[in-house]
Amino acid sequence: MGFVYLDWAATSPPDAALLERSARIAGEYFANPSSPHAAGLKAREFLEDCRRRLAAVLGCSPSELLFTSGGTEANNMVLFSLLRRRRGRRVVLSGIEHDSLYLPARRLEELGGEALVIPAGRDGRVDPERLAAAVDERTVLLALMRVNNETGAVQPVAELAEALQRRRAARGGRRILLHTDAVQALGKLPFRPAELGVDTAAFSAHKLGAPRGIGALYVRRGSVPEFLYAGGGQEEGRRPGTENLAGAFALAEAAERAAAELEARLARARELMGRLITGLAAIPGCRLLPEARGSGEPPERYSPYILSAAFPPLPGEVLVRVMGEEGFLISTGAACSSRKQERTRVLEAMGVSRELAASAVRISLGPATESGDLDRFCEALRRRLPALLGAAK
Amino acid sequence: MGFVYLDWAATSPPDAALLERSARIAGEYFANPSSPHAAGLKAREFLEDCRRRLAAVLGCSPSELLFTSGGTEANNMVLFSLLRRRRGRRVVLSGIEHDSLYLPARRLEELGGEALVIPAGRDGRVDPERLAAAVDERTVLLALMRVNNETGAVQPVAELAEALQRRRAARGGRRILLHTDAVQALGKLPFRPAELGVDTAAFSAHKLGAPRGIGALYVRRGSVPEFLYAGGGQEEGRRPGTENLAGAFALAEAAERAAAELEARLARARELMGRLITGLAAIPGCRLLPEARGSGEPPERYSPYILSAAFPPLPGEVLVRVMGEEGFLISTGAACSSRKQERTRVLEAMGVSRELAASAVRISLGPATESGDLDRFCEALRRRLPALLGAAK
Repeated sequence: MGFVYLDWAATSPPDAALLERSARIAGEYFANPSSPHAAGLKAREFLEDCRRRLAAVLGCSPSELLFTSGGTEANNMVLFSLLRRRRGRRVVLSGIEHDSLYLPARRLEELGGEALVIPAGRDGRVDPERLAAAVDERTVLLALMRVNNETGAVQPVAELAEALQRRRAARGGRRILLHTDAVQALGKLPFRPAELGVDTAAFSAHKLGAPRGIGALYVRRGSVPEFLYAGGGQEEGRRPGTENLAGAFALAEAAERAAAELEARLARARELMGRLITGLAAIPGCRLLPEARGSGEPPERYSPYILSAAFPPLPGEVLVRVMGEEGFLISTGAACSSRKQERTRVLEAMGVSRELAASAVRISLGPATESGDLDRFCEALRRRLPALLGAAK
Repeated sequence: MGFVYLDWAATSPPDAALLERSARIAGEYFANPSSPHAAGLKAREFLEDCRRRLAAVLGCSPSELLFTSGGTEANNMVLFSLLRRRRGRRVVLSGIEHDSLYLPARRLEELGGEALVIPAGRDGRVDPERLAAAVDERTVLLALMRVNNETGAVQPVAELAEALQRRRAARGGRRILLHTDAVQALGKLPFRPAELGVDTAAFSAHKLGAPRGIGALYVRRGSVPEFLYAGGGQEEGRRPGTENLAGAFALAEAAERAAAELEARLARARELMGRLITGLAAIPGCRLLPEARGSGEPPERYSPYILSAAFPPLPGEVLVRVMGEEGFLISTGAACSSRKQERTRVLEAMGVSRELAASAVRISLGPATESGDLDRFCEALRRRLPALLGAAK
């Protein structure tokens, strides 16, 4: 490729063999799975097989999985399903949620709903008790992502589910939907929605080497009967549109493979991340975000695939450009909000100043990352930084 | 394939070479088009090139095209964009719209909107004056599909746009959004949104030999500033989610190719459809739906790619099964509503009795359909029908 790719949290280079097989599947099972003839039935059976395979990875029932066009659609579906509910429309969410959950919550407010945003701690993690305490009788949804896409901070989703349960046992009231955006968790950390106690969870395939345009939504049985969009009745009437069978196949394959290799990849990523953190921490002027990150940290607290660091007062985009000249592809915060003014929202929600946040870059790793790449990255950074910092001051 | 595929309106067998090229593109331009580094920029440029190519086919500006996950999403986007408008939420639509427009309109009603449904004539076409007359000052959207997916009836969309303009010239009032579902039109009949005078138009790729999971929405400049779903700011903030670049490429390629061959394919389809209609009309007990269809009909009135016929009192699903045994894959009405009770809605909206509608099957043709296939289809039908009709009576 001629460069070192360190932007795996934005998207993963696709697995060429998987793309090829997926294209063959699209040809072999080309019929519309809703068509009533033999070719349609064959396609439907294949689609349901893909669903069973993904369900086995997630430890859920196949009927609890809907295929979507990606993680963004899955997050939006959950938020806007609230429009079809008769009772209150108050949602409580963390301030570090991805834009595909945060902005729909803001739009829900414009439509007469209410969105309460709870900040994270300086360690990038949200206090589950604080989130649970923000719930009132009008609250219908609580959202906390599993792994933050900018800092890698793993969020205490299971603890939140328990806090909610305790609260309900003590005070009664209706069950509140608990949603988690698991886009940066699937295939990276152990993830089983039932073990975390969530009602809904959003997944994306292209973060795992599968093609763009496919994702999934876990919906615990009975938790969300209806979503907003409607059409040809696909996915039991809950996600309309002719089913992207080849995409579903690629997602199931990629998720299965990532699950099979999860522990080995995780151990490797931990070692690589430790090396990267040690290398960066030795560079004068480097600030890890959050500062709590250190080499040898347990993956229960931070994903070893994602790291944010800042070199104030150097603007993040300058460092991205300079490191690009050196052949390293990194990112400023979330890829998809990198072109916007508000790209510091997430870091600010954990108490990072706007100035420091504007200086942040994200370095994210994947199965193909080599330790030598990270060493060379740190070397190049150390070499270029003094002049850049001198110019920025 | 071992069978004759006559269900092209449900989905088209994908072009194997196109799928392969699309998979290669997914690898070559794998980066997230929103990533700020060189690989992201390369992907963004490629994506914009795909948009320009599709725009050239449609005769519109690239900035007027959003890539979506398909036609269903495009239709839903337009309908639910109305939730973000401050003024009235009354929509007027034809009764023969696809479920992905009809059902969202019904849901809009549940959310405080209003949906007025105007039936079609017995010829399967909607009277544009009748639709325009149903508009009142609370109306914000009018929807009329370009080609009906069950009968092939081409709808007078341009005439409707003119009627709306006359009405506005005479009475004043605000401009009303005019939407057309062009899923069965793109690549089949000449289609340029600006020539028809529509504000928005929905497209699907998989009807043209491109993969599932990609479509597009034409949005005339200034007509719909905002849609409901939100996220990472992709597609100028109007359709969130990491862009499906390989899908966009395949859609642009397939649309270009279909446009280049449009006239030749159309002439061929006309001949094939004439042959099919003549063959069917000679079979005792056959009723074309609408009855106005005849061989040699101009494509301005009916798409030569789609035909509905009924053999009362034989249930459509029985005929689908029997013809399947004979190696011919046809469908009952729309593929995607074929598993539902309400699958007779569209035919009933043009005055066909429920009994007759329940007997309908859809035969749809594509570029690979051969005249011999259609002859053999009619032969098989003629051979099997007497016993079936005897049993059904």
